[in-house]
Amino acid sequence: MHDAVTTEIAAYAAAARLNDLPELVKREARRSLFNILGCTLGGARHHGVIAAEAALGTFAGPGPATLIGRGHKADPLHAALINCLASSVYSFDDTHEQAVVHPSGPVASAALAMAETHPVSGAGLLLGFALGVEVTCRLCKALTVPPAKGSMAWSGTGITGGIGAAIAAGRMLGFDTVTMRTAIGIALSQAAGFRAMHGSLVTPLMPAQAAQTGLRAAFLAQAGFTASPTALEGRYGFLSVFSETPDLDALSGALGSRWEILRNTYKPYPCGIVIHPIIDACLALRTTHHLHADDIKAVDIKASPGAMALCNNRNPKDEMQAHVSLHHWTAVAFIRGTARIQDMDTETAVRDPALMAFQDRVNAELDPSVAADAAIVAVTLRDGTQCICRIEHGIGSVSRPMSDAELEVKFAGMAEPLIGAERTRELMRQAWAVEALSDAGALARMAA
Amino acid sequence: MHDAVTTEIAAYAAAARLNDLPELVKREARRSLFNILGCTLGGARHHGVIAAEAALGTFAGPGPATLIGRGHKADPLHAALINCLASSVYSFDDTHEQAVVHPSGPVASAALAMAETHPVSGAGLLLGFALGVEVTCRLCKALTVPPAKGSMAWSGTGITGGIGAAIAAGRMLGFDTVTMRTAIGIALSQAAGFRAMHGSLVTPLMPAQAAQTGLRAAFLAQAGFTASPTALEGRYGFLSVFSETPDLDALSGALGSRWEILRNTYKPYPCGIVIHPIIDACLALRTTHHLHADDIKAVDIKASPGAMALCNNRNPKDEMQAHVSLHHWTAVAFIRGTARIQDMDTETAVRDPALMAFQDRVNAELDPSVAADAAIVAVTLRDGTQCICRIEHGIGSVSRPMSDAELEVKFAGMAEPLIGAERTRELMRQAWAVEALSDAGALARMAA
Repeated sequence: MHDAVTTEIAAYAAAARLNDLPELVKREARRSLFNILGCTLGGARHHGVIAAEAALGTFAGPGPATLIGRGHKADPLHAALINCLASSVYSFDDTHEQAVVHPSGPVASAALAMAETHPVSGAGLLLGFALGVEVTCRLCKALTVPPAKGSMAWSGTGITGGIGAAIAAGRMLGFDTVTMRTAIGIALSQAAGFRAMHGSLVTPLMPAQAAQTGLRAAFLAQAGFTASPTALEGRYGFLSVFSETPDLDALSGALGSRWEILRNTYKPYPCGIVIHPIIDACLALRTTHHLHADDIKAVDIKASPGAMALCNNRNPKDEMQAHVSLHHWTAVAFIRGTARIQDMDTETAVRDPALMAFQDRVNAELDPSVAADAAIVAVTLRDGTQCICRIEHGIGSVSRPMSDAELEVKFAGMAEPLIGAERTRELMRQAWAVEALSDAGALARMAA
Repeated sequence: MHDAVTTEIAAYAAAARLNDLPELVKREARRSLFNILGCTLGGARHHGVIAAEAALGTFAGPGPATLIGRGHKADPLHAALINCLASSVYSFDDTHEQAVVHPSGPVASAALAMAETHPVSGAGLLLGFALGVEVTCRLCKALTVPPAKGSMAWSGTGITGGIGAAIAAGRMLGFDTVTMRTAIGIALSQAAGFRAMHGSLVTPLMPAQAAQTGLRAAFLAQAGFTASPTALEGRYGFLSVFSETPDLDALSGALGSRWEILRNTYKPYPCGIVIHPIIDACLALRTTHHLHADDIKAVDIKASPGAMALCNNRNPKDEMQAHVSLHHWTAVAFIRGTARIQDMDTETAVRDPALMAFQDRVNAELDPSVAADAAIVAVTLRDGTQCICRIEHGIGSVSRPMSDAELEVKFAGMAEPLIGAERTRELMRQAWAVEALSDAGALARMAA
């Protein structure tokens, strides 16, 4: 049991069929794919993506792979890198509840690039994507989630995204077990990333690198390149270097019957996840009581320890700081009734005088009894009225997952500024119905 | 002291000038560059390089960077990958005596690709290369050589080659300290590779990946990408994830006055380094006593523990096995008087009946008193004559470095089959005189 875990996973990924996946698993795969497609559009015009494209675009090869939201095409390896960078750059993507990995960016970017290079049906894309996400989540869980013991210093997505990208691409190419195992081995050998880079553009570059090297691993394996057949479990192998005590059962136990993708979650707001329940409360108060920001005298927040430790930052100066400022997002929620990328992606958006002034009325206080996905927000109006909202589980947490409708609002908020309302609606429709597509590449092309 | 070691190294690399380098350092940099250029030619037609080019060549962008020994050009990132793969694929490159890192492949491949993309003088190339090799050796030493404590499971070249490539490229682009530090941070974030891949084509892919990502880091930094300013020493930074107790003094102590590049060594033969003194002895016996293989009844070898543990393999079946068979190389040395790539690079070369038959007469015995770079070989002729040769330090060891003339024999053995004797002579002349080149790209072009 598990003494040949690389082969075990390769054999499973090479043989699995879409019809073997439970309906709930297919549904969550569609939701993950839908969400990350929107995030890729949302990040396509980020200055970091523009910088990367300026630096590397001239070195890209010709090819059919769409740079999503950027309107041109390139070779699939370049497209996988740039699209994954875009999908991750606002940290607005997805998160496996336990493993703290963001699986969809690397896997979808590789799969979409492959779909345009080697055309495949929508069902084929969804299958490859689901398998890639599943193995990435399992591997990350196997490294650090108890009973596993491992260092949190590694970038979970950086080191485990590549295997998912390779598996997605390999499945779409119809690899047998041996070729799949080689692709997995090559991908793992390039696994990289550590957390010291937090707060810089390297944070999204690590998943992007995983997308590109995972996809490349599939192409190399297809061409006869070789790798160790025991890349995971072998002496001096992946598991031993990245974990003190890896949990092999988390990695390959009950393959095909236990599904980690079901624990994937999506962020409703493009900011630190500990701020999310606060935004939920502010938006609920604003709607329920028809509040106008000018009428508000004070906002008193009882915040979780995590929110206070990471996000108690009044009057941020730029996008990076706004990302982790609960004061900023409280002001945005009450003044604009939103919490979107465009509420923080420029200095103008962040330093808006109305937002800055409102933040002086926001006070946050530590309440150790408030859970990480909870918040209590009390508003005092100028006329003395008080209203209060308690959020037990923020939207997007495992206990209160985003609905499909909420995912659509998020998607549209990112897509419409780039491709307009009508094409956004059509793209959403086709993304939900991905299995019906005869050519999955249409998804990327429609998001060009 | 060393609390800002990333900045310290960046500042040094941004400011160093070729004239500040001691003459011995410049000499060793020239020798390292000369050697790796030959190795790149030597590996250019290896089946692994051909497979990689088949898989990835169609995705390469257009560009001026030469694929050495392959006769065409591509974008610099692809050229860096393929050239470094070729330079490493026979493990015939170079080795820092203590750090067990092969620094020149990643650094030279990035520097040569940059020299054709952004033309620079030969002096500029040599400076960038010397600085890159120096920092790669220092970083690898800082991770694992006592007093540092670190896992030997990582691929030393895989994880430290990228910083050298980035520094070489950044120096050639004239980066200031801050941009250099960013390039270093980006490069380190992509550091990857572990030893489970030994014996597969992934072994040379890990340095190749370091070459490519290091070069890319320089381009990204130039375009305004960002990275942590404390990528090495920061919390959850490179040093902490790759070493239990890093040795900061080995990394940045006496920068500009202590030189690790002086401890770089070159392999005279394309096989396991522990076999080298045995080959030296066999070749010396053959020449000194004018031996003919047919006259030899028995060869008795007293071998070091390392040679016995790794290379006591009679009658290898393929190139990978021949690489670590002392019997194979003993037969080659006595029969052909050589020890070249073409003595093992095809099954025909390995399974030559004369070589196979001779190996039956070769006996190796462990002698714990024989050092790793030593060997004792005794030959018994059919007429009963005995002759014996004791090698104290094999050619290519630190105690008995390869001479320039020996490096030329090695170079010519690899270059001539590809570019002919005349162009080989001219290329060697220009490589030795690299500082006189007004356009360093000429080196790569001449080796096309």
